[in-house]
Order: sequence, then structure tokens, then C-alpha cells
Amino acid sequence: MTADWIAVDWGTSNLRAWAMQGDRPVAAGGSDKGMGALAPEQFEAALLESVSDWLGDGPTPVVACGMVGARQGWTEAPYRRVPCTPVDGAMVSAPAADPRLDVRIIAGLAQDRPADVMRGEETQIAGFLHRSPGFDGVLCLPGTHTKWVQISAGEVVSFRTFMTGEMFSLLAKQSVLRHTTAADGWDDEAFAEAVDEAIARPEMMAARLFGLRAGTLLHELPPERARARLSGLLIGAELAATRPYWLGQQVALIGAPGLARAYAEALRPQGVAAAQPDTTDITLAGLIAARALI
Amino acid sequence: MTADWIAVDWGTSNLRAWAMQGDRPVAAGGSDKGMGALAPEQFEAALLESVSDWLGDGPTPVVACGMVGARQGWTEAPYRRVPCTPVDGAMVSAPAADPRLDVRIIAGLAQDRPADVMRGEETQIAGFLHRSPGFDGVLCLPGTHTKWVQISAGEVVSFRTFMTGEMFSLLAKQSVLRHTTAADGWDDEAFAEAVDEAIARPEMMAARLFGLRAGTLLHELPPERARARLSGLLIGAELAATRPYWLGQQVALIGAPGLARAYAEALRPQGVAAAQPDTTDITLAGLIAARALI
Repeated sequence: MTADWIAVDWGTSNLRAWAMQGDRPVAAGGSDKGMGALAPEQFEAALLESVSDWLGDGPTPVVACGMVGARQGWTEAPYRRVPCTPVDGAMVSAPAADPRLDVRIIAGLAQDRPADVMRGEETQIAGFLHRSPGFDGVLCLPGTHTKWVQISAGEVVSFRTFMTGEMFSLLAKQSVLRHTTAADGWDDEAFAEAVDEAIARPEMMAARLFGLRAGTLLHELPPERARARLSGLLIGAELAATRPYWLGQQVALIGAPGLARAYAEALRPQGVAAAQPDTTDITLAGLIAARALI
Repeated sequence: MTADWIAVDWGTSNLRAWAMQGDRPVAAGGSDKGMGALAPEQFEAALLESVSDWLGDGPTPVVACGMVGARQGWTEAPYRRVPCTPVDGAMVSAPAADPRLDVRIIAGLAQDRPADVMRGEETQIAGFLHRSPGFDGVLCLPGTHTKWVQISAGEVVSFRTFMTGEMFSLLAKQSVLRHTTAADGWDDEAFAEAVDEAIARPEMMAARLFGLRAGTLLHELPPERARARLSGLLIGAELAATRPYWLGQQVALIGAPGLARAYAEALRPQGVAAAQPDTTDITLAGLIAARALI
């Protein structure tokens, strides 16, 4: 089956692709060949592995977002400066030897002061605005590098990135806390308590983190509780920092379901009922919106 | 040359040993066979490698402090509960097959609420008090897990551990910031600025960390500046948390010279002139003080 065009969400860890007929996905595929695992000359082959069944004889447009456009990616896509619409028609072509490929990479967004960048989230923002036209408020996109984004009149006004997800992963897997935190499992109460503590005194982070280790040694803190508490301490500190973003605002969460749920639980006691739209649908809607601008 | 006894400082990464005649070190040795690199049955051989030249025919007392007494160490030494003197005569004997060894490990200290533990620093505290009898004030022992300790009337009243050093190492070497921070190099001004920012708004940590990455991408932030700034953000947040410890107090810093200097630089604009005694001398004094209590 041949696609009119191909939509690709290509992040650091994964590649997801959809065969599109008009605005409708008719097949989906992907692999774990994310940007982080590839040298520049390996991107074309990695893409063909996932999409070659969908290619006709002539060139098929491929619209891609994410870290594929980073400096270490296939080819560097520019950053557009906020305030601006999340996507526009200015995309960069990626060099491909196969004449059946016509690959365009969506530009990221940058902010001068405070310095900040995003790649991939701009497409999700476009998708969200496509589904909720006229939205004025705040998007939170939790992940390795969580983004908080102010949206007004269809534009990204400002944004800020938090390394919360990457810190969680480093601390849980590579610090002394690896002896203390479970790989899975959760405890809602421990999470909520830790969020509260961190919102109240975010500066205590580094001490409370070591407190997890001491809690294990002295009071047999269960590893599931430690894991939920670690997450709560980090997300709570982020909420302390982002209060101007969420206080009294319309907030929507776009991210992996488990993580988005944790953020929603953390925000609820603060009086914020955050929407949680389907992230895959939003991403695809963003790629469709970008394609329409070429 | 034969030792009366042997003093050993045995941490996670290194082993340092001194041949002692009375209170005088007459030879020094050591290796990189820290606790982290050894299984319980390997400690005896690792010790003999560094000290066998100093052993006579009868059993030689060996007094050791540090992570050698951790649960994953040679044998687990107990924790004594604060408030208490930093060391007392209650040590645990480590099992040794060689009859020339009589190894005692100094107990660590623990605090129930908030849960906290130390191993090794208690001996440095004893050494500091041996050199500065009657000291009332605060000790800061910077390292992988920095300790802040309240001392009064010769006792450890309370303490708190911050994972600042481990976070610096993880972020600089294993996070996205590894592309951004230099392995060496420093910038005093960038450090001081970052300390200030972090003391003022410690909750912004995770955003300012990502700001280093964005600063590299957008404004060519020099890697030495990024390294100093990373350190300043983390130490500044720690100072925001430890204000009750240092504000208007006598403070002494005990740690590796470069790191102790950074803490001293961070504290100076806060009106704290922290003493920086020689750490090796302090550690040895602590082992001598502990030996006198057996």
C-alpha cells in the first residue's frame, strides 16, 4: 500500500511513522532507532527500514519532527524564535540518496532570554491547537526534559524546560539511590506527600534525596515508596518553580500516560484540573498541520 | 619498619593507610581499592597489599574509618545515634585470617528524624575537635554526599546530608549537560553568579540546568563557564537549604581543597568566613583520637 505522504515522530530513543492518505493514517510503524543511536549517515537507512513498504515510484513527502533535526541528528533544522506560531512552512530538507524520499524536518523553537530550546514539542503544540483552536493557557509536556509553554492567540509566547525526567532517571538508576528505589511500583500517598514537601521547601531537594537512602538504612523505607517519593520530590520542585505558569490557568498535559497522570495528581491539590488529551493523536495532528503548511 | 598500630581511612573509592608510632605517622601508603570495588572477602587482601611491610610478628592493631564499615563493606559497623560524641570505644572487629591483623572499624553516626547517616565523617569531626577543643559551631564536610553538622559541647547535635557532589558528577558526566560542561576549568564569576541565583530562587534548579544546554546551543556558553555555573547552581541551592546552619555561625570546611575552596567562595558573600583546616591532618587526628578510646 502506497502513502500520499509519511508522518514521522523521531525522538532521541524512538522512531514512529505513519503512512498517510490525506489526513488519515492508514498504517503505522516504527523502531527503536532513535537519534541517540544513529550517526548522520545512518538516518536514511533507519527510515527506509520503517517506511519502504509505503513508498511508490515517485518521491513521497516525509514530514518529520523531533531530535532528528538536532545538531547530532540527520541534518540540523533551524530554531524559530518565540513568540511565534508553533510550526510554519520553513522546513529543512534532509539529504537522501533514495529518490523515493523527500524528507522535510520541522524547525524547533528557541527563546533568547532565558535561553531555551525545543524540538518535537512544537509539533505537539501545533497538534493541540489544531484540536483545540482558540485555546489560551498553558501546556505542560512532561518527559525527559519537561516543557511548560504559554499559549496565546495561537502563538507560543514563552516556555521553560525542566530537566526533571532526566534527573529522575539518573538518580533512580545511577546514583546511590539505585539501592533504594524500585524499578517499578508506586505509592500514591508517598508521591503526594513528597510533592507537598517539595512545593513548600524546594531548596531541600538534595537533602531529601539522601534522606531516601537513610530511610532505607534506618527505617526500611519500601522501595516502591522510595520511587514514588523520588518522583514527587522532583515534580514538586518543578511545580514550585512553575507556579506562575499554572496558578489560576487552563492547563493541558501532553506526554506519556503514566507520567502525565503523575503531573495531574500533583497539580490537583493545587486546584488545577489539568486536561490530558491523547498524546499520539496530538502528535499526529501536529504533523498533519505542518504538512498542510508546506 | 614495624608500626605500633595502623591508621586507615577507607572510603568508597580509595584506601589510605599510615604506619603509626604512638601519635606519629612514620610511613604512608594506600591504593584505589575502595569499598566500591571490593567484595567482603577481598578486603583483607586489599589491606595487606598496603600495610604488610609494617606488620611485626604479633597482632598489630588497625583502626579504620569510612565505608569499609558499610553494609556492603568488610563487615557492618553499627551506627551510634546523635546527639553523641563523634567517636567512642565501641568498634566492630573485622574478620581476618592473617593473625598479624587486629582490625577495628569505627562506628558511623545516625539520626532518626530526619533520617540521616554518616560513615567516615564522624572520625574527621573527632579529629577537628581534637585540634580545636571547645569548638561550638558548624562543620561542613563537602564531598559526594556533603554533610552539615552542628557541634556543641564536644557532641554532634544534628546533621544533614546533601547529594550535591553526586548530582554534580551525574549531571556533568552522564546527562545531556555532558555536551556542555568542560571536564576541567573554572570561572569564578560564573560560579558566584550562579550561587547568587540559586540562593535567591533554589526551586528553579531543573530549569537553570537545562538553561546551560540551551546557552551552549544559542549563545555559545563556554564549557568552563558551564562547569562553574553547574557547580554554583547546586552549591547555591544547598546554601539556601542550610541557611539555619551557617547564618551567623562559626563554620569550618573539611574536604578536598578545590571543593572546600568553592564552598568558601560561595559562603563569603553571605558574610561567612569559613575556616579551611588541612583535611588529611584532621582525618589522621581523628583516627588517633579513636585509637586512644579503645
